[in-house]
Amino acid sequence: MLSIGVDIGGTKIAAGVVDEDGEVVAATTRSTPATDAALIEAAVADAVAELRAEHTVVGVGVGAAGFVGADRRTVNFAANLAWRQHPLADELERLTGLPVVVENDANAAGWAEYRFGAAIEAAHMLMVTVGTGLGGALVMDGQLVRGSAGFAGEIAHMTAVQDGQWCGCGRRGCLEQYTAGTALVRTAKRRAAAGDPLMGPLLQMAGGAKKEIDGPMITRLAQQGDPGAREMIDELGRWLGVGMASIASLLDPEVIVVGGGVAAAGDLLLEPAREAYAKNLTARTHRPLAPFVVAQMGNRAGIVGAADLAR
Amino acid sequence: MLSIGVDIGGTKIAAGVVDEDGEVVAATTRSTPATDAALIEAAVADAVAELRAEHTVVGVGVGAAGFVGADRRTVNFAANLAWRQHPLADELERLTGLPVVVENDANAAGWAEYRFGAAIEAAHMLMVTVGTGLGGALVMDGQLVRGSAGFAGEIAHMTAVQDGQWCGCGRRGCLEQYTAGTALVRTAKRRAAAGDPLMGPLLQMAGGAKKEIDGPMITRLAQQGDPGAREMIDELGRWLGVGMASIASLLDPEVIVVGGGVAAAGDLLLEPAREAYAKNLTARTHRPLAPFVVAQMGNRAGIVGAADLAR
Amino acid sequence: MLSIGVDIGGTKIAAGVVDEDGEVVAATTRSTPATDAALIEAAVADAVAELRAEHTVVGVGVGAAGFVGADRRTVNFAANLAWRQHPLADELERLTGLPVVVENDANAAGWAEYRFGAAIEAAHMLMVTVGTGLGGALVMDGQLVRGSAGFAGEIAHMTAVQDGQWCGCGRRGCLEQYTAGTALVRTAKRRAAAGDPLMGPLLQMAGGAKKEIDGPMITRLAQQGDPGAREMIDELGRWLGVGMASIASLLDPEVIVVGGGVAAAGDLLLEPAREAYAKNLTARTHRPLAPFVVAQMGNRAGIVGAADLAR
Amino acid sequence: MLSIGVDIGGTKIAAGVVDEDGEVVAATTRSTPATDAALIEAAVADAVAELRAEHTVVGVGVGAAGFVGADRRTVNFAANLAWRQHPLADELERLTGLPVVVENDANAAGWAEYRFGAAIEAAHMLMVTVGTGLGGALVMDGQLVRGSAGFAGEIAHMTAVQDGQWCGCGRRGCLEQYTAGTALVRTAKRRAAAGDPLMGPLLQMAGGAKKEIDGPMITRLAQQGDPGAREMIDELGRWLGVGMASIASLLDPEVIVVGGGVAAAGDLLLEPAREAYAKNLTARTHRPLAPFVVAQMGNRAGIVGAADLAR
Repeated sequence: MLSIGVDIGGTKIAAGVVDEDGEVVAATTRSTPATDAALIEAAVADAVAELRAEHTVVGVGVGAAGFVGADRRTVNFAANLAWRQHPLADELERLTGLPVVVENDANAAGWAEYRFGAAIEAAHMLMVTVGTGLGGALVMDGQLVRGSAGFAGEIAHMTAVQDGQWCGCGRRGCLEQYTAGTALVRTAKRRAAAGDPLMGPLLQMAGGAKKEIDGPMITRLAQQGDPGAREMIDELGRWLGVGMASIASLLDPEVIVVGGGVAAAGDLLLEPAREAYAKNLTARTHRPLAPFVVAQMGNRAGIVGAADLAR
Repeated sequence: MLSIGVDIGGTKIAAGVVDEDGEVVAATTRSTPATDAALIEAAVADAVAELRAEHTVVGVGVGAAGFVGADRRTVNFAANLAWRQHPLADELERLTGLPVVVENDANAAGWAEYRFGAAIEAAHMLMVTVGTGLGGALVMDGQLVRGSAGFAGEIAHMTAVQDGQWCGCGRRGCLEQYTAGTALVRTAKRRAAAGDPLMGPLLQMAGGAKKEIDGPMITRLAQQGDPGAREMIDELGRWLGVGMASIASLLDPEVIVVGGGVAAAGDLLLEPAREAYAKNLTARTHRPLAPFVVAQMGNRAGIVGAADLAR
Repeated sequence: MLSIGVDIGGTKIAAGVVDEDGEVVAATTRSTPATDAALIEAAVADAVAELRAEHTVVGVGVGAAGFVGADRRTVNFAANLAWRQHPLADELERLTGLPVVVENDANAAGWAEYRFGAAIEAAHMLMVTVGTGLGGALVMDGQLVRGSAGFAGEIAHMTAVQDGQWCGCGRRGCLEQYTAGTALVRTAKRRAAAGDPLMGPLLQMAGGAKKEIDGPMITRLAQQGDPGAREMIDELGRWLGVGMASIASLLDPEVIVVGGGVAAAGDLLLEPAREAYAKNLTARTHRPLAPFVVAQMGNRAGIVGAADLAR
Repeated sequence: MLSIGVDIGGTKIAAGVVDEDGEVVAATTRSTPATDAALIEAAVADAVAELRAEHTVVGVGVGAAGFVGADRRTVNFAANLAWRQHPLADELERLTGLPVVVENDANAAGWAEYRFGAAIEAAHMLMVTVGTGLGGALVMDGQLVRGSAGFAGEIAHMTAVQDGQWCGCGRRGCLEQYTAGTALVRTAKRRAAAGDPLMGPLLQMAGGAKKEIDGPMITRLAQQGDPGAREMIDELGRWLGVGMASIASLLDPEVIVVGGGVAAAGDLLLEPAREAYAKNLTARTHRPLAPFVVAQMGNRAGIVGAADLAR
């Protein structure tokens, strides 16, 4: 039984035919006409049509960055796309003639890890995506936790520091301001601007221009053993562990899956995260410690998860 | 279809026959022989026998303060009772001949509110018990969230303040140190010891002895309009709102039920909690705000919830 | 005995002849050629020459934004002007033939308040300037506190919040990020961007463009009773009180003088500051509480203070 | 020119004849009759009489734990001795016939370090005493900073963490709760109580009784390389550095002298302090970094400093 998964990003729409083992048997892409809802839908329908020409599918799952309603049909709000209270599933069903399920993209990716990736056979999974921002997905008792209105999983905006760094969400001290790619890059730029000598090698890699500093540079330098870069990745990891420990006190997951671009730092990120987690988890001597593992599904996670949710 | 609910507390065992509407149709109590596991079981069995003499029941649900295993049969650890990795359900089934389910007491009480009380018909409930300590129970999609090893719901030990007040759990800044009865009383004693004039009326109520200050005194004074007591309850409420907002970012509950002794302060506690919650909830302008409501099941919550879980 | 005071700002050089009572008996200005040290000095010399044409003076005091060496002759670093380890006093003595003393501008202004303004006859004064940024000046036992290398008085960069808001100085949680004009405006913009309804009137005053929001708008709205603006000024005031209480624990001042543009908010700022100060000052029941008073010397403070230091 | 210094502690009165080089040429002690002001004075007078029998002195300096008035004659409040607004200098002058100066004991000890010890020839000194509690003394421009009412130097009660650990002074987050002997011991006990395996060797040294843990045990274990003890001393040192950096932003000292019992840990304490200081000091690339040095005057600091102040 095959189904189609679609991952609608800010610049690219990726679609694929996925089998029951989570394998992508065919794939295609379109660019995203971000500012026009009808054009996005037409592009998705076009990609679906292309894939159906060669495969028989039972439905379409769509992952999208945004707040998806609890009915899995409506996108209530998306920061980067032209959707406000938009009946995405209805529109796509009309265009494709197939049953459509919509899911938040982080949830779709998390579901893929739970079903086919790093958390396979773990009934209680916490997934955290440390990319530019911080994303999350929760599976409890084998069910994706979506919350009463589809807003669950916003790990990014749990408060890490009272009166801490301002966040784009209009509040202070959100976890995302301490453990995500933008936090990493901001730290580097601020320290470089203040003349911190530990930022020297990084500035050099950026050609002397602190505004050119980016996350992959820092990760690369850290992997080469640079003390300044390691210190920053280490700090990011500790905040990650601190945040996950608070969540684990609440939800007691079996495994913690870490995805996203910053996860490329591997144990440079995960070791301090594990250490801070163990130190900050309550009752740690009376309970198992959930392992931190790296996500396995890569770029196809969104497609695979969405497709699976459509079955 | 009737079942028996048993609530094993540190000093008292309360048991009752509960019907399918959550009504307690018969009840009895025993004192708790806290230091001897076998005596506790004998007392429970005795109470069950008394109740069965008059009613036909299908099973027994037991709520106990402690970490209950994911299988709902074993108590892994209890701070105040003589249980360590104890097969409580096995023992009670042997003694009573009835099927037995064990649950953490806060979870049992939360389940009662979900099934018959303040959160009836809310599929996603967050319950917080503000008593001496801080307890929690989560229902998501109509299921009690227990976590991978039964440790879920430990709201008390989520971190509210980095490097904050030491907690008995061996870490710093746990939410319980900011919003629970002990936190309230400690604040009052510290301020009184430092000669804070706002603590005058409270000290007077305590007969001039700051060690006699207790939570109900503060609640009573607050209800009478005393500025010092109001300030402290207000601060407690704000921390409650701050904590619930972090949880809501993660879980998006439909309703937040507040129980426990301090909830007797009513809106003096709940109004600042609601205000801080609204202020600290991310994306608040794009989503519904979960209401804060007072728990309705009172002392019988543990019995009713445990009994219902046994069905 | 007359002396000349010069206040070198980023855009304007103000100079005046000052008598022994702190009165400005003649004044003139030049624009600041900010990027060329020699041109700045020529402009200062020119202004001094103009003033000397009509008055006999014994020396010149110069106030400048920057780190002035302990010898009061060298500017070690200035953020906005072309000075690095610059022998400003030597150069000006050469050009004017008069003895020259250089002082940090905040210190000069603070000295004016101590000698002729809000802190007259107070041997121990703490002055804080709440403008765009946060400045400070200390007088202890009638002496300006300059520190071992002239860096004393950097109130702005005392840490208010561990891991708090990033500061331009390359560290986190500096007091300036919580109580200064830029902090006020950033708070307003962030809250407006997040759709906070309390920011409505302010947005309206800014013509709907959140980037047009400035500090005087907020002060004006607060004075008109707008709840959102009042809340923000109030919060600024509380942080001011918190910060001053930490300093007072260390230095035990007799009076706290508040200057700078935000001080225009008057008691809307000072009342919450006083309240937070009283609450956060240690041993407050065993000691006098230093009053918070508004600075009296206005724009001429820099000229008057510098001139007086030159006598 | 000789003078007598007297150090009145909670259990012992130490007195000595001190020469102009800070040498103690004769010494004696009495036990402290702590609850009776007149008996304390009689004991001091008796010790002074004994010392004068052999030496000609010009005056008496008295160091006492407590808030000493700005006139250096009155003890306004002492936590452990029977003084409230007590005219100590008057009484002692009456009894001894010599001129008497009273000073806070931490100030007296700091003055000794400035005049004859670790800060000799440093015009701007910050001294911090890390003992059971946290004490401080400031010398600026060669003058002891006493503040408007004698309360200056209360480093202990500057706020390190907003909403942090409660302090005996009735406020939260005082620096003393993070870097002093009691903080160290509390941390150890809390961690031991929570079953932290890193506390094993310490518990063993305490004979298995966590209430027997004391500061010297932790220092000793740290010196032996024990990871748990090192981690705790290291954390203490980092907070010390953080606190000193805030003070240095304000006062720009030339040298930071660290005394008190915990200073026995030497570089185990001072290295993390120096590192955190460098990291937290604003404008660190534009200024000299004050060195952290260990106090040199030992137990006689109080006597020597008080005697010197009496000259």
